Amino acid sequence: MADLVLGADVGGTSTRVAVVDLDGHVLAVASGGPGNPNLVGVAGSAAEIRGAAERALAGLDGTVRGAVVGLAGGSVAAADPTFLPAALPAGLDAPAVLVSDLAVGFSSATPADEGCMIIAGTGAVAGRVVGDALHARRDGWGYLLGDRGSGFWLGRAAVRATLEVLDEGRPPTPLTAAVLAEAGAGGYLDLVQACYTHPPTWLARFAPLVSRHAEDDPVAGAIADAAADLLAATLATLDPRPGEPVVLGGSVLATPGPVRDRFAARVAPGLELLSAESGLVGATWIASRRLGRASAALHARLVATLGAASRR
Amino acid sequence: MADLVLGADVGGTSTRVAVVDLDGHVLAVASGGPGNPNLVGVAGSAAEIRGAAERALAGLDGTVRGAVVGLAGGSVAAADPTFLPAALPAGLDAPAVLVSDLAVGFSSATPADEGCMIIAGTGAVAGRVVGDALHARRDGWGYLLGDRGSGFWLGRAAVRATLEVLDEGRPPTPLTAAVLAEAGAGGYLDLVQACYTHPPTWLARFAPLVSRHAEDDPVAGAIADAAADLLAATLATLDPRPGEPVVLGGSVLATPGPVRDRFAARVAPGLELLSAESGLVGATWIASRRLGRASAALHARLVATLGAASRR
Repeated sequence: MADLVLGADVGGTSTRVAVVDLDGHVLAVASGGPGNPNLVGVAGSAAEIRGAAERALAGLDGTVRGAVVGLAGGSVAAADPTFLPAALPAGLDAPAVLVSDLAVGFSSATPADEGCMIIAGTGAVAGRVVGDALHARRDGWGYLLGDRGSGFWLGRAAVRATLEVLDEGRPPTPLTAAVLAEAGAGGYLDLVQACYTHPPTWLARFAPLVSRHAEDDPVAGAIADAAADLLAATLATLDPRPGEPVVLGGSVLATPGPVRDRFAARVAPGLELLSAESGLVGATWIASRRLGRASAALHARLVATLGAASRR
Repeated sequence: MADLVLGADVGGTSTRVAVVDLDGHVLAVASGGPGNPNLVGVAGSAAEIRGAAERALAGLDGTVRGAVVGLAGGSVAAADPTFLPAALPAGLDAPAVLVSDLAVGFSSATPADEGCMIIAGTGAVAGRVVGDALHARRDGWGYLLGDRGSGFWLGRAAVRATLEVLDEGRPPTPLTAAVLAEAGAGGYLDLVQACYTHPPTWLARFAPLVSRHAEDDPVAGAIADAAADLLAATLATLDPRPGEPVVLGGSVLATPGPVRDRFAARVAPGLELLSAESGLVGATWIASRRLGRASAALHARLVATLGAASRR
C-alpha cells in the first residue's frame, strides 16, 4: 500500500485533481467541469471536486495521507463546514485542507516558503503567501469595483478608446478598428449595445487586441502602460522584498507580451519574477510539504510532470 | 381659442409636461412616472408622455401649435416612427419634434442659440447644442463603459478607497468610515457583496459622501479632484469658446459643492457657467422658438414660472 498525496485545483473553467506519491511521481490526473463555488454553488463545487477525485483514485492501490484543495472564490466555501467533507471521497487517511488559489499559484512556481503572487486574467488579484496561508490580499474586487489592470480592464479601456474616437470623429487607429471588427459593430450605438447585451466580463475579449497593437498603435501602447502601472501599484502595496519570488499568473501576466514586459519594467528591482505553472503542482506540493516532504527536487519533479501534463 | 405650446421633459425618474401660451404664461403642468425608453420601453415611454399631456391639456381651451418632447436615451425612440404619434394626444395642430435632453437642458438655462451642456448626475454626458440639435455628444456610455466623473463614478471611487483601506489594514478615514456606515457593512466581504447584490448604479448613493468630506479628508478631496479633472476633460473635447454659455446639469454639477467648484477651476477661462433649470423651461422654450417667438423676455418668464413650479 503506497502513501498517496492528492491535490485539487478548482477554478471557474475546470476542476482538476492529481494524485502523486511521496516522491512526487504522478500516478493519476482527472478533471471535471467548473468548480468555483461562486459560480456553481458550494454543493456543486464539492460534487465536481469529489467526482474528479474519485476518477483520479480509481484503480490506485494506496492510502491518501494528505489532501489539499486550492480554489478561487473560496471564502464562501471556507465558511461552510459541510464543504470539505463533501468534496473528498470517504476513507482518506488525511485531514484535507482548503487553501487559497493564490497560495496554490505561488507554490506552483517555487518551493519558497514566502513571497507574492499576482494574477491578471479576466480579473486581477494579488497576495502575500506565507507557507499555506494568504497573509494579505489586494484587489480581486471584481469587474464593478476593481480588477485593475486585468483582462476586463484592458478590454474596457480598448472599447473606451474606440468610443472616444467615434464621439470625436477622429480617424480610427489600428486598435479601434480592431475593436469594432471584433465586436462586429458598425459604429457607436452598435458597440455600446453589444457591451451591455453581454455579461460585463465579455469586455475581456478585447484585451488581446491591446497586446497585439501595443507596439504599432500609441493608443494601445498607452493602455498597456496604464495596466502595467496599476498592476505594479497593486504589487507594491504588498512590499515585496529584494530577492523575494513574485509569481505571475493569468493570461495577461503569466505569458510574455507587452503588458508583462511593461509590468516587469515597473516593479521594484531585484524581485525574482516567475510564471505560474499548473495549479496541480501547487496543490500537490503544499500537500507534500505538510507531510514533511519539502525539497527543491520534489518541487522540480512535480513541475516537470504535472506542468507537462497540464500543457498537453 | 388660444394658441398653446406643449413641452415634455422625459426622464428616468418622472415624465413632466407643461402647457404655456405664446407669451410664456404657464397654463398647466402635469407629471407621470419614469419615461426613459431605455428603462420602460418605447411603448411605455409613449404612454407616460401621452398620459401626462392629456392631464395637462384637460380643461384648457386652445389649440396646440407646437410640441417638443425632450428625452434622454432617445436614440431608440427616435428610430421608431410609431413613437411620437403614440406619445402625443390626437388633434394637435402641430408637428411634434423629439429633441435630446442635452438640447432641452441647455435651453433651460439660456436663450442662446449655441453652446455646451454637461450633465453629471448618476451618469455623465456632454454635448454641443446648436439650435434644437445636438451637434456633438461626449460620453454618456453608461456605468460599464464611461460616465466618467458622474455620481456613479464618485460613489465607486469612494468604495474603492474604502476597500483599499480595508485590504491594507490602514486606519479608516472620515470618508471610508462613512462608506461602511452607509452600506451597513461590517467589513470587506460585506461591502463587496452589497455592491454586487444591488444594481450597479446603486454605487451612486456614495457620491454625496465624497462631497461631504472633500474638505476634511484628503482621500475624498483627491476623488473630487479626479472627478472634476474627468468632467473638465470631457467638456474640453467640445472646444467651448470664450464667452460661450456652458450649462451644468445633474446633481453633481448643477448644485454648488466641491466637485462643481473644482470643475469651475479647471475649465477654460471666460466660459459662462450656468446651472440648468427645469427641463420644462427648455422644452417649452424650444417649442416657442420654433414658432418664431424667441425673445430673452419670454425665456426669462418661462424660467420664473416653470423653474419655480419645478422647485415647489
